[in-house]
Amino acid sequence: MAEKKKLTIGMFSGDLDKALAGFMLATTAASMGMDVSIFFTFWGLNIIKKNEGRIKSKGIMRKMLNIINRGGSKRLKLSRFNMFGLGTWMIKRLMKEINQPSLDEMITMAKDMGVKLIPCTTTCGMMGLSEDAFRGETSDLAGAAYFLAEASESKVTLFI
Amino acid sequence: MAEKKKLTIGMFSGDLDKALAGFMLATTAASMGMDVSIFFTFWGLNIIKKNEGRIKSKGIMRKMLNIINRGGSKRLKLSRFNMFGLGTWMIKRLMKEINQPSLDEMITMAKDMGVKLIPCTTTCGMMGLSEDAFRGETSDLAGAAYFLAEASESKVTLFI
Amino acid sequence: MAEKKKLTIGMFSGDLDKALAGFMLATTAASMGMDVSIFFTFWGLNIIKKNEGRIKSKGIMRKMLNIINRGGSKRLKLSRFNMFGLGTWMIKRLMKEINQPSLDEMITMAKDMGVKLIPCTTTCGMMGLSEDAFRGETSDLAGAAYFLAEASESKVTLFI
Repeated sequence: MAEKKKLTIGMFSGDLDKALAGFMLATTAASMGMDVSIFFTFWGLNIIKKNEGRIKSKGIMRKMLNIINRGGSKRLKLSRFNMFGLGTWMIKRLMKEINQPSLDEMITMAKDMGVKLIPCTTTCGMMGLSEDAFRGETSDLAGAAYFLAEASESKVTLFI
Repeated sequence: MAEKKKLTIGMFSGDLDKALAGFMLATTAASMGMDVSIFFTFWGLNIIKKNEGRIKSKGIMRKMLNIINRGGSKRLKLSRFNMFGLGTWMIKRLMKEINQPSLDEMITMAKDMGVKLIPCTTTCGMMGLSEDAFRGETSDLAGAAYFLAEASESKVTLFI
Repeated sequence: MAEKKKLTIGMFSGDLDKALAGFMLATTAASMGMDVSIFFTFWGLNIIKKNEGRIKSKGIMRKMLNIINRGGSKRLKLSRFNMFGLGTWMIKRLMKEINQPSLDEMITMAKDMGVKLIPCTTTCGMMGLSEDAFRGETSDLAGAAYFLAEASESKVTLFI
């Protein structure tokens, strides 16, 4: 009876707007006393990549992919109206005006509130990403079976 | 036992095709006797903006955003094959041919069937949208906590 | 008590990356003993179209649509970094390197594991697709009400 309600998010997208939606929901849920896990896969991994330094990976194709698809919360763009960066810059400004924390701050907040941030083993393998590609707030890698087990026990599961 | 099953949709996208999918599911669920809420956030707010008149907002950036991102159910475009409007026009024609109501009609139908249409407080604040930007079918604004509470009690929750 | 847990996926998108995510989850769930249904709608129908031959449909607009929007698991492209096919080719190569089956193989595997692959009646009607547009692994067409009924009994429902 005293069990906590759970929210599981499968974060597939690496767009700034979808990442914001995901982290707004995650931090709100945590503040409501829910147990929250976010599982990052495909482009979603970009959200939790380190903002600094280079991403190391083996093989020419993976090296290329990790240059084109660099990621890091500060580099994400809007899914529409990016307009060569102008739209993205505007949204960040508007968020500041209403005292909304930045995505970067929300990631740290989420971790502090107990939200688990989990990179997907399979896509990490495919893209040549090891745990040191990700920021400190990130948990150990886990696979699709883990996501499904968490989701099965969740009141709410979202694929974003 | 006599409790109604619930469907909650988080409508993030403002693409015509995704809006159609959302409203087809919402109206079908309502016709099956389910309780339905659609929570509109980010680009999804465009779906329930008034089709007529100008959107008023304060500050030069918000004014610009609400011109570029005008919205209204009759102005939405397909997420792919828009082809400068040709694809969007074709889909609308094809829907008419199979006697499928238009998105605009489905919004009114949904409301008549008891579907709740709720704009997200936070993105409205960010984008400078007040309640009079939205059509008459829309309910009062509500935040992420409200969405999560509804979703927690729902048999089915979809993020579109 | 001995009831099987259920996963229902609403597959709206026809992008290669999202299709891969959907089928990885579906096959993993099936291997965990879950009951899995994937419901294909809009662009998602492209995933299960036959790779060979022409798609037959009536009327000039539907014929055009089915040429532009040809589909078939081998023709899908990434939602980002397609780069005129280079990115898509790279992802396929990287998957092979980590011994991940191709999408085409995963569809067959899924069927063999008991995953139900269901095309949406309404979008098939709109796009002029009949059952012989789809590959052999596909079940009979079904509507939104069927999807919602399945989802209502599912532990996990995802809209991809």
